[in-house]
Amino acid sequence: MKPVRVGICGLGTVGGGTFNVLTRNADDIARRASRPIIVEQVGTRRDNPQCETAGVKVTRDVFEVARNPDVDVLVELIGGYDVARELVMTAIENGKHVVTANKALIAVHGNEIFQAAHERGVIVAFEAAVAGGIPVIKSLREGLGANRIQWLAGIINGTGNYILTHMRDEGRAFDDVLAEAQALGYAESDPTFDVEGIDAAHKLTILASIAFGVPLQFDKAYTEGISRVTADDVEQADQLGYIIKHLGISKRTEKGLELRVHPTLIPKERLLASVHGVKNAIAVMGDAVGPTLYYGAGAGAEPTASAVVADLLDVARDITTEHHYRVPYLAFSGIDEADGSLPILPMEDIVTAYYLRLLAVDRPGVLARVATILSEQGISIEAIIQKEATEGELVPIILMTHRTREQQMNEVIRQLESLADIAGPVTRIRVEALDENE
Amino acid sequence: MKPVRVGICGLGTVGGGTFNVLTRNADDIARRASRPIIVEQVGTRRDNPQCETAGVKVTRDVFEVARNPDVDVLVELIGGYDVARELVMTAIENGKHVVTANKALIAVHGNEIFQAAHERGVIVAFEAAVAGGIPVIKSLREGLGANRIQWLAGIINGTGNYILTHMRDEGRAFDDVLAEAQALGYAESDPTFDVEGIDAAHKLTILASIAFGVPLQFDKAYTEGISRVTADDVEQADQLGYIIKHLGISKRTEKGLELRVHPTLIPKERLLASVHGVKNAIAVMGDAVGPTLYYGAGAGAEPTASAVVADLLDVARDITTEHHYRVPYLAFSGIDEADGSLPILPMEDIVTAYYLRLLAVDRPGVLARVATILSEQGISIEAIIQKEATEGELVPIILMTHRTREQQMNEVIRQLESLADIAGPVTRIRVEALDENE
Repeated sequence: MKPVRVGICGLGTVGGGTFNVLTRNADDIARRASRPIIVEQVGTRRDNPQCETAGVKVTRDVFEVARNPDVDVLVELIGGYDVARELVMTAIENGKHVVTANKALIAVHGNEIFQAAHERGVIVAFEAAVAGGIPVIKSLREGLGANRIQWLAGIINGTGNYILTHMRDEGRAFDDVLAEAQALGYAESDPTFDVEGIDAAHKLTILASIAFGVPLQFDKAYTEGISRVTADDVEQADQLGYIIKHLGISKRTEKGLELRVHPTLIPKERLLASVHGVKNAIAVMGDAVGPTLYYGAGAGAEPTASAVVADLLDVARDITTEHHYRVPYLAFSGIDEADGSLPILPMEDIVTAYYLRLLAVDRPGVLARVATILSEQGISIEAIIQKEATEGELVPIILMTHRTREQQMNEVIRQLESLADIAGPVTRIRVEALDENE
Repeated sequence: MKPVRVGICGLGTVGGGTFNVLTRNADDIARRASRPIIVEQVGTRRDNPQCETAGVKVTRDVFEVARNPDVDVLVELIGGYDVARELVMTAIENGKHVVTANKALIAVHGNEIFQAAHERGVIVAFEAAVAGGIPVIKSLREGLGANRIQWLAGIINGTGNYILTHMRDEGRAFDDVLAEAQALGYAESDPTFDVEGIDAAHKLTILASIAFGVPLQFDKAYTEGISRVTADDVEQADQLGYIIKHLGISKRTEKGLELRVHPTLIPKERLLASVHGVKNAIAVMGDAVGPTLYYGAGAGAEPTASAVVADLLDVARDITTEHHYRVPYLAFSGIDEADGSLPILPMEDIVTAYYLRLLAVDRPGVLARVATILSEQGISIEAIIQKEATEGELVPIILMTHRTREQQMNEVIRQLESLADIAGPVTRIRVEALDENE
């Protein structure tokens, strides 16, 4: 069969990796796709790309690739929202299939992009947009297609996990490890997207849409970063048998869908607790299959390229079919097929357990006053630990609660902070059991 | 689009589960497949099937299903080699697509079955044949399609892992835990297939064929069970920082392919070491993606049904296409496309590290004699531990070696066993690093 001709836009880390993998493993890839996959054109403004492009047409205008009649598939690796959106829409208008690693683009503009692709009858594939090389999109959309998904929870930002791993292993502070991660190139000079959870929320939005069949609703995701997690919280969690991970969590409940990114205490014996450094992993609970987990590199040149090329393989296989795409983009193809009956719950309505850390004046009765506030809100306490006080110092109180509604917990924290015995703000970290041995 | 009509043969645990999942999640499944998937006929000799078949045609002759012109896809869940083979071949002759959970059938008769299916232009799907509900076939064949696979290693027999988990957690003997597993229904009354590694070798054969593009060669797999692992070995391994797991391992080397199932010491901090009880997990190392891992339930009614129905979804999507199948059965479609240049290595040629346990007479110089034998075979010792002896008793010596060829180790063991200082046979368990953080 004739080759599939690819136009790669963006030749940075991932673009260079994609070019190299396509070249190095060309024979294996052709066998699996039943046809060769060749790079027809590259669009880049870089003068020193990360790969050997000799023999390939290079243009500085990425839109030329989107209009090139000799390109079957445009690979969008330029990143960002605006130019990427215009580039992808132009490619679709020109009847090209699209492969992208751009999570921000899909999470924010996906509904519009998929609708346009649906109408034009082209594929838009984005395995590389979530968790790098881990085939989690394919696993969720196809491999677990028999299931009603109950929940998913993932470590889907490598930078955040790198920081939390080193804070725990070395007892260091957030700022200290962040500075090191920046020096090593694991964190951007502006780390906001990673450490404040925006990147994870992009990915979670995409995963939830596939798992639950709902439209992409990034604006409704609750997003809390790890920048306020202290070395002390990490240490307290450890003593209680937990580890703090930055998780993206989406759960189906009777009232709607939870969609939230925040630091989370999980029991040490969970597989997710053993995911270290920049690695990613996603746990998915289906009604038939039970708990499953997918682990691997969440970023990097070749891991991400692995996912980009897997999408190209799918395109190469599907391109001969009548409808050009056999698998819906998300859990559905046209937005009108999405499940509109499952609203994203406001954060006040989620239900989870909590870890609280308060600093109290060491006076008789303080524990009783704290316990009374929780009791009045109907919240059961699993554990309450008051640390030894040195004369005159504030004493930390650690609380672990049973599951309750976030709204009740907000009220508890408001009342605790208004107690004369309690100094400063109350630290609240959510706790999830996430039992993968169920 | 018109429904896909399924004929289910075999209505035991997995058949009943498949029927129930298809019924319960019919709406979600139809949305994902873009068409309904309905059960047209069931072939079973059971009078009390595990599901409510009211309204479905039931026959006691499974071959009637294979010839029924109203059946598009035959789901083979009767198990075994001979009747299953005949049933599947009859279905293929009659132009039906086939979905099967039968690992023995695929591992032993797969080359013949896929060739027939290839010629007839029908799909044969078998996700459920390996690791139950974990979508590892799809992940390997499609999700990691960009990669040259370097190795894979999996806990792919739940019964064996259940036994090893309880031996370790409770310090119990193999026979003791096996008896309990049989009483609980986790092990068959004849446990040979599970505990002697035959079931795992079937699954490993299939995984290796997909990962490395080689023909199915079950007869060349090295198969060693867990029945000779002692509570003492489990304890020694633990003290050395290892856990014993029953692994299926396949590695690409310059000379050929390693294909082996045996008890294996792996470092405790590996994710595979945290896979407990009847759960399965497969680690896969690709040249681009790096290390990945897939975890979930390896058996059971609904987990296996999850994989069967995922295959039905693929069939429902592919059935409209020109070629009827878009993804090759294994890494290739026709056997002539398989990689014949990669032979399966004889066990003597594999390279790994070793744990040895010997019982020695407590005489001066015995450690030196043992060390000399290894040294003469060019094998480096990583650790050698001689336990405290009670007067007149045999003293255990534990050895950990660096990596060497199995042939050298066979010679070492032969010489050790011929020493007058050494009593009885030498215990040998292979050791693998399997670093998923690489």
